[in-house]
Parts: sequence; C-alpha cells; structure tokens
Amino acid sequence: MQIVTEQLYENNPHVTVTSYILDNFPEIWVKSRGAVIICPGGGYFGCSDREAEPIALRFAGMGYHAFVVRYSTYTQGEDFGFPDLSKPLAIKKEKAHPAPMQDLARAVLYVRSHAEQWHIDREKLAICGFSAGGHNCAMYSVYWNKPELYDAVGARPEDLKVAACILGYPLTDYVYMNEHVMAKADAMGKAFFAASNRAFLGLEESEVTDEVLESVSPARMVTADTPPTFLWGTAGDSLVPPAHATLMATALAKAGVPFEIHTFETGDHGLSTSDWVSAAAKDQINADATQWIPLVEKFLARRFTPAGIPEHANYEVSVV
Amino acid sequence: MQIVTEQLYENNPHVTVTSYILDNFPEIWVKSRGAVIICPGGGYFGCSDREAEPIALRFAGMGYHAFVVRYSTYTQGEDFGFPDLSKPLAIKKEKAHPAPMQDLARAVLYVRSHAEQWHIDREKLAICGFSAGGHNCAMYSVYWNKPELYDAVGARPEDLKVAACILGYPLTDYVYMNEHVMAKADAMGKAFFAASNRAFLGLEESEVTDEVLESVSPARMVTADTPPTFLWGTAGDSLVPPAHATLMATALAKAGVPFEIHTFETGDHGLSTSDWVSAAAKDQINADATQWIPLVEKFLARRFTPAGIPEHANYEVSVV
Repeated sequence: MQIVTEQLYENNPHVTVTSYILDNFPEIWVKSRGAVIICPGGGYFGCSDREAEPIALRFAGMGYHAFVVRYSTYTQGEDFGFPDLSKPLAIKKEKAHPAPMQDLARAVLYVRSHAEQWHIDREKLAICGFSAGGHNCAMYSVYWNKPELYDAVGARPEDLKVAACILGYPLTDYVYMNEHVMAKADAMGKAFFAASNRAFLGLEESEVTDEVLESVSPARMVTADTPPTFLWGTAGDSLVPPAHATLMATALAKAGVPFEIHTFETGDHGLSTSDWVSAAAKDQINADATQWIPLVEKFLARRFTPAGIPEHANYEVSVV
Repeated sequence: MQIVTEQLYENNPHVTVTSYILDNFPEIWVKSRGAVIICPGGGYFGCSDREAEPIALRFAGMGYHAFVVRYSTYTQGEDFGFPDLSKPLAIKKEKAHPAPMQDLARAVLYVRSHAEQWHIDREKLAICGFSAGGHNCAMYSVYWNKPELYDAVGARPEDLKVAACILGYPLTDYVYMNEHVMAKADAMGKAFFAASNRAFLGLEESEVTDEVLESVSPARMVTADTPPTFLWGTAGDSLVPPAHATLMATALAKAGVPFEIHTFETGDHGLSTSDWVSAAAKDQINADATQWIPLVEKFLARRFTPAGIPEHANYEVSVV
C-alpha cells in the first residue's frame, strides 16, 4: 500500500485528498479495484479524523482503494473543534455551499485521473460520508448530473457519475430540520444548528428562503439518476434525528433507486466505526452499530466484486 | 498510517519486516495499541503475498498495528513459487530450521524495540501465521521460553512472550504428517512434502529421526505457557489435513490454555482472507470461511481492547 496526500487546489493547502492505494501482487488475481471516496463529518466546521483513517482502513481491508477528502469547511486548517456559538459567526462565502460539493466533484475527477496509474476501476467508485460529510455526499448524489455542478468543475456528467453512495447518520433535509428540529431542540441544539447552517450556507438568516433550504435538501431532489445508496445510523441520534435517513430512503424507494437502510435502535450521533478504534469516549462505542461495516461490505460486494476470476489456481508444481 | 520495510539482518535483504503503523489523532482516545505480527505461508519455500498485505490491512482495520515478517525460506529472494520437485533439493542449512523461528523472534524484538516510537502496547502482541507460517508461529508458541530460542537471539524469555497466537490451516505435527499424510498422499503430495520437509529441516532423509520430527511438532510440545491460540481452517483441506489443527486444539485443551478453533466444512488449503481480495482463483473464495475474520476480531478484542476509555466525549460546545 502507498499513502499519498495531495491538494486539490494549488493555492489552498486545506482541501486535500489522502489516497490509500492497494498494491498489486503477481499471486493475487485482481489487478484493478473499486474505490471508496470518503467525506468525514464535522458539521461543516471541520473534517473529523474520527471518520477518516479508521474508515479508510476498513474499506482497504475489503479490497478497495480508499480516498479521504478534506473538503472546504468553516474552520479548515485549524484544529478540529466547534467555534464559539454564543454569537453569530462571521460569514465565509468561499468556504460555504457549493464549495464542499465542488471539492468532492474535484476529488472524484482526481481519482478518475489516476485510474491507470493506481489500477482503479473507473466504473466502481463509491462516495461515503458521515453527518455533514454524509450531507455533502447526498448533495453530490443529486447534483452530479446538473450543470450547476459539472459546469462549475469543468467536467461532463459522466465524469462525475459514481456507482454507489454510502451515508452514515447524514443530514438530508434542511426543510425538515428547520421546521421540526429547530422547533424541538434545546438551547445548545438551536445554537449548534444556527451556527452550522450559517457556516454551510454562507448566508445571513434573512437570506435563507424556502427555496434555499429546498436546494440543499437532497431527500427532496432524488431522481432515478441518484446512485444506489446505503444508509445507516441510530434511532438514538440526538443531534441529527434518524428521520433524515428515513426521508432519504423513502425518496429513493419512490424513485426506484436501489437502496438499503439500517437504523440501529440505540446509539447517539457520530459513531463512525462504532468501536474503540475511532471513539473519543464510550458513548461512541456500540456493538450493534458495528454491524454497518459487514453490511456495507456486502452492499459493495454485490457491485464491486471483480468479474472474470479463473476457476482454479495453477501452482505449477511439477512432479515428473 | 505509515508503512516501513526494514531488514532484520544487515547482510540479508530477504528477511524483512513490513510495518503498517496506525497514526494517532487528537480526537480519538486510544493512543497505544496492540499489534499483530504476521507470517505468510508458502511451504517454507517462500512467503506468499496472498497472506501478507491483505491480512495486514484486515488487522489494521481492527485498530491494530500490523507487521508482515518475511522469514527465511528456501527460495527467498526469488519470485514466489515451488522448486522443481522431480529431484531431491540441495540442502540449504542457513535457511532451514531453526532460522524461520529465530527470524520471528527477532521480529518480535524489533516490534518491542519500536514500542515507544510507534505507540505499541508491549503487552498486546499477537503472532499470526498461515500454513507453513502457521507452523512457524506454533513453533514459536512452544519455544519462546526455551533457551534454544531466547539464547539464540540474545533475549530474555519475557522479551519474547506474546499474548496471543493465530493459526490459519497450520502444520502442527510432523509425526502425524509422516505417519499418515505421507502414507496416504498421491505422488504430487508425497513429492511436495518430501521437498518441503527437506527445505524446512535442512537434513538428509537418513538424518530425520523420530526425535527430530518430535522437536518440530508443536502439537506435541504445548504447555501451560503456550499463548492463548485461535485456530481456523477447512475440513476440505487437501494439502494440510485439518487434524493438524484439531491435534493442536486438543493439546491446548489438555494444557488448560485458552483456545478457539473454527474448522469450516468446505474449502481447500490456503484460503487466506477467503474472498477475492487475496484469491488467485475461485477455489480460494469461500463465503463460510470468511467468518474467521470477524471471529478472530472478537478473540483479539477480548484481550486487546484498550482500558480506561472515558464515559463521555467532551466537545466543548459553548453556548453562553
């Protein structure tokens, strides 16, 4: 395996792709593999390391190249953490929507551009995001074939097409969030979402119209062209309610898009691998939720298992 | 993650350790981890890549540092493959027993010597081998506290002690192999074992006494000091019969050593990860046998899960 980190923009050291490239070996039949492109979460304030390398190594173990995208976020380049929420954040237009989605598009183009060098199967790309990173992937899922995205990155839609999307405890519906979550949230929840929305949208509150909210709600924009999607999360999520996932699943079901959803009964927001490997504390460890990893392995295997493997190994043991 | 390959002996480029070292991150609680030291198989002719990186990445995904040891073998430095078995092999003393076991001991010392630098928990080392590599690990399991091994590498037994041993379709009993397997084997099997034994023992046939065979049969040497052991393989193994594993398990049971054995009904020798990721052909893919990986994860988790993880994450979201 080789590991390489590169910037996606020459003049921005904070938007990067870290590539975990599997080696090929003469003895092993497969020489070209699928890849999973990962967007960590972090409320669009930062990109959490908890959802970066530990996730990449799980997909590498399944036989896929893995790529971690550190996309544009509000505090990018600073240590991961949340800004002071006691006063309205300064607007940072250049880090706000649609920058994160465009960064992901550029990451997909970056991966495709290395297909030959790194023996990547161009037809077997998945995107995978968590929390806000899940929102970013869901946005990409519904924008990849819209000129707003492909023109902005100078690509053709077919260059941006991916074969699968994996969403861990994602935000998918800002209209629902605004109507229900903000109404019910406690003071901290309200402050968190007000700040996160401001960081992500880059708009003053007065500018946030219904149209704006609709336009960043992938659960409301699913079509038959949305990629097959694997959703997982926990019903006990106190930050991003599980209805974000079920609303997205409903939209996929209605559009006839292949999908799979696993909402585990217990567990709070942000479980990542759901074991000690990524946990900051015990409340991020949940044995039931660890099952999302073997489940997503099967979901990917149905799509990404290489074809053409010969029936029998030939070890050329000669006994004359 | 960083990946480093180093020689274990200055004057021998073929005996190496490739280290897959997990990074630490401020957000993730664990800062010191267990490690798995891997011996690929290859009939003591070579070290197969099929049981190297694909295995290392599975253990890395579980949160452990992984180390692949390329120990002394007959054709080391050449491309992996089997020598011409139609005539007796030339004896190569320097690559024969006890070199492979000493190489593994030096690898354990190498890993321990990097404990601080690479944040390895010295008390949480496992060895893991496949086929002949499994034999090497089983040998180590019964020799680590004997002066024949620790004096030979200039160490104290406590420096060589490991907390667990993982054996995939291992050879464990050369007496059984000689009496039963050689008697029943077809011409190719006979030639293969005659050559492998010659490669491993470095002895002319006339020198291979009962005492020699006993001394390389870990299933006959298990004591209460043998580390807790996880055994797996397939009953359909046509090269190394499954009784090698059950004989070892019986010895562990009698000695009161914690152990676990999973012999899957179907599947031939050398399944490695048992999926396409390590397969040369379809006959090395077996859905049932893939279960050894989640099973060994639980076996390791019982021993290697870090203690002291705090109850609650503190994200310092301040809402004054």
